[in-house]
Amino acid sequence: MDRVLPFRFAEEEGVFWLLDQRRLPQEEVYVPVRTAREMAQAIRDMVVRGAPAIGVSAAFGMVLAHLAGEDLEEADRRLRASRPTAVNLFHALDRMRPFWGDLAGSLLEARRIWREVEETEAAISRHGAQVLWGQVLTHCNTGPLATGGYGTALGAIVEAYRLGRVRHVWVDETRPYLQGARLTAYELQKAGVPATLITDGMAGWLMARGAVDAVVVGVDRMALNGDFANKVGTYALAVLAHHHGIPFYAALPLSSVDPRLASGEGIPIEERSPEEVVAFRGVRIAPEGFPAYHPAFDVTPHRYLTGIITEKGVLYPPFAEGLRRALGLD
Amino acid sequence: MDRVLPFRFAEEEGVFWLLDQRRLPQEEVYVPVRTAREMAQAIRDMVVRGAPAIGVSAAFGMVLAHLAGEDLEEADRRLRASRPTAVNLFHALDRMRPFWGDLAGSLLEARRIWREVEETEAAISRHGAQVLWGQVLTHCNTGPLATGGYGTALGAIVEAYRLGRVRHVWVDETRPYLQGARLTAYELQKAGVPATLITDGMAGWLMARGAVDAVVVGVDRMALNGDFANKVGTYALAVLAHHHGIPFYAALPLSSVDPRLASGEGIPIEERSPEEVVAFRGVRIAPEGFPAYHPAFDVTPHRYLTGIITEKGVLYPPFAEGLRRALGLD
Repeated sequence: MDRVLPFRFAEEEGVFWLLDQRRLPQEEVYVPVRTAREMAQAIRDMVVRGAPAIGVSAAFGMVLAHLAGEDLEEADRRLRASRPTAVNLFHALDRMRPFWGDLAGSLLEARRIWREVEETEAAISRHGAQVLWGQVLTHCNTGPLATGGYGTALGAIVEAYRLGRVRHVWVDETRPYLQGARLTAYELQKAGVPATLITDGMAGWLMARGAVDAVVVGVDRMALNGDFANKVGTYALAVLAHHHGIPFYAALPLSSVDPRLASGEGIPIEERSPEEVVAFRGVRIAPEGFPAYHPAFDVTPHRYLTGIITEKGVLYPPFAEGLRRALGLD
Repeated sequence: MDRVLPFRFAEEEGVFWLLDQRRLPQEEVYVPVRTAREMAQAIRDMVVRGAPAIGVSAAFGMVLAHLAGEDLEEADRRLRASRPTAVNLFHALDRMRPFWGDLAGSLLEARRIWREVEETEAAISRHGAQVLWGQVLTHCNTGPLATGGYGTALGAIVEAYRLGRVRHVWVDETRPYLQGARLTAYELQKAGVPATLITDGMAGWLMARGAVDAVVVGVDRMALNGDFANKVGTYALAVLAHHHGIPFYAALPLSSVDPRLASGEGIPIEERSPEEVVAFRGVRIAPEGFPAYHPAFDVTPHRYLTGIITEKGVLYPPFAEGLRRALGLD
């Protein structure tokens, strides 16, 4: 796979370069980030997005805080406040804390977090590829751009294609932010995987016509029972797949499981600006002053899941048991 | 309701003026149509859209053919070939045929077709308003702009709001053509009905959270058993409503029932250009050369319908029986 990474760290310059994902696929522009404050803003503005990529970026944000001489408490606070839903952000910042005041140590830890993302996703891709076949449908973007590694759901899809198991991918455009149309399409094109773009409302109809053999999505945060938050639209896909008897998988690193949450009810749902619904790249699509609603995520109950693809293998119901074991909580 | 009509006929000028719906809500521009050939092109290009409005437009297209001295056989053929899914187009043209060669008669018949749309929809709105309440969700555009009358599903919603039964409307933006965001939002705003725009992928999540009391949509063509074609995305909404135990209604004039079709399997589905999926108003959203799929409609089996709202009242299962009776086929 011709893998495009969402960032690179230029140690000599003290700059973390982010590929501006808001401008893909039209333009490949890298934005320099020199402070934790700038990193928090870039995360909030979705220059970089995707739970694992946000985690790595936040870790490097703390490295930048050291380099730039920022107040570390303040830097940590700003980064934590940037996006509330994904748990990777908080994990990464928790791991950086013991290295506060130690530039070399914090840089090593940030690099370690990044390398672990890669190793974890290589394993997720390998396990996931074994359960996918035929025509697969996916939502949002879960490839290298979203993670800094090989991707979760998309990593598994690409690996399954390599193995000759998956032959075609349906890409939900994923309104309002169009991560599917802009980013997943871009990554599948680079990877040479046959794929077709659809609007989110077409997925059910494709299922009814027998054109979907499996659905696989990523996860922003999962509770201990398998309930999970992911890009809005995931819940509807899960219900539709369930109704049509189509296998529905969530792929995630175990670090996206929040062991403090017994069920999905406790997952905070970020509400983003309605402007992202009523306008696209400056083109207004609704009348002036018309209200819009924009929950960025929805929560899918575990009962709609066929399996959970993790770096330790694919878990099947009962998920609560499997997740506790995989996390070493039993 | 401050009703905006999709067209007006200026008899003295021999011009049928179409409100260019592709440019709403930003601009209210009227386009002059002087021949049947121009009318067929305008229908194909979706300057005017919505099954009933297309029917009225096609009827006036035949009037224009008389005024412009076009070959009537050719004019009829062109108009029939403009959009394949809605049945109103064919009904209207069938009704015009006896008046070929008779300008005054054809004008009277076209006006009669238009007036019948208004009367029919006043009745649909009245009946539909009795079964809707609370928060209603709708898809695509089924208001006066789509019909030339009072609207079907949207007519019922507005009437139910007037009666104090419906208090809020969720408007599916309806990708790819955004009829919900552009047209339904525009019409609800003009009518003063409280409403909120959502992306199509959010509907399921709103249902799960108890924010939807009923779903009501329009119909492009219905078979005798109640199966019906409507804007793509309708099928998924029907399954989601069914899954959540939420009433799901289709509103239509009985003229949208095709008595030659026993079930939805025979309804032809128009495939439109993938360009409408990969670009919006010149803004490209997917990588160059990435394929897209664009069925304009999907078919919803009657088993997902709670009721069918017609000008003769609301029909309940078994629909085959009710429809035959309403159509006078028994």
